[in-house]
Amino acid sequence: MKISYQSIGTIFTPFKSVEGMPIQPSGAEGIEGTIEILPEFVEGLKDLDGFSHVILLYHLHRVTSYSLSVVPFLDKVEHGIFATRAPKRPNAIGLSIVSLSAVKGNKLFVKNIDVLDGTPLLDIKPYVPDFDQVQATSTGWFEKNVKRAKTFSSDDRFKDK
Amino acid sequence: MKISYQSIGTIFTPFKSVEGMPIQPSGAEGIEGTIEILPEFVEGLKDLDGFSHVILLYHLHRVTSYSLSVVPFLDKVEHGIFATRAPKRPNAIGLSIVSLSAVKGNKLFVKNIDVLDGTPLLDIKPYVPDFDQVQATSTGWFEKNVKRAKTFSSDDRFKDK
Repeated sequence: MKISYQSIGTIFTPFKSVEGMPIQPSGAEGIEGTIEILPEFVEGLKDLDGFSHVILLYHLHRVTSYSLSVVPFLDKVEHGIFATRAPKRPNAIGLSIVSLSAVKGNKLFVKNIDVLDGTPLLDIKPYVPDFDQVQATSTGWFEKNVKRAKTFSSDDRFKDK
Repeated sequence: MKISYQSIGTIFTPFKSVEGMPIQPSGAEGIEGTIEILPEFVEGLKDLDGFSHVILLYHLHRVTSYSLSVVPFLDKVEHGIFATRAPKRPNAIGLSIVSLSAVKGNKLFVKNIDVLDGTPLLDIKPYVPDFDQVQATSTGWFEKNVKRAKTFSSDDRFKDK
């Protein structure tokens, strides 16, 4: 089954290349970005400015192939791609929760963004703790590695040759 | 810009029609579902069983058109679609955080699922509190309405005629 989507806007950030990027928003504290929404979708932003955080879904446009087994940035052993947040996924959809500073016209001003400059945006959802926070009792291989995400940045391992 | 994805599997749940469905996993407590992953993607599930919760991204396949302004289930006034979790989005991508009970072969057994039976799956990401929990200081129009999500179920307002 083929599924088609369209870009609803573009994410602009200081990260011009994959190398050296933070690997999660938790490592992108304070990094500012701007999102420009295409004119035909601006009406959909009404009341978004009431939310302190939003979920961004975007197309990882530099990813051109996938790997089902990967050694993620935060570990040294291989895991299934669906047990990681690595970008080379069968459907290259990225998810980031960012802080929303302001909405002005067709522009969103955001903080704590770990996204590559020029990334096509697919969807914006308001972040609602009652829906989006669950009491996770186990986080698999992340358990002993996750604290490193704050200081870790990417290398070229998921770059297409 | 057109973006193409493919289904990596199918979500099976007790919800055979849109009417009467819980509108969020918080209203689907205990509801069990099964996810069948296509054989060619099963390798990607390795080590997923170490996680208590996963993020599902799926294609809202019954949505055939979108509305930029909607009156969501939890309110009586109109909001921009991107300030809601309503399904009739420009890109009909659904997001649910569900409890993962077991992974057996190509099957995932999940709980607290608010998804329509037969929904095509796009991606699975492990739920990692360090990445996915932020300190939201405002949740817009949800603030006075969100507690109702536990007891509320959908009607036919987002059904295509």
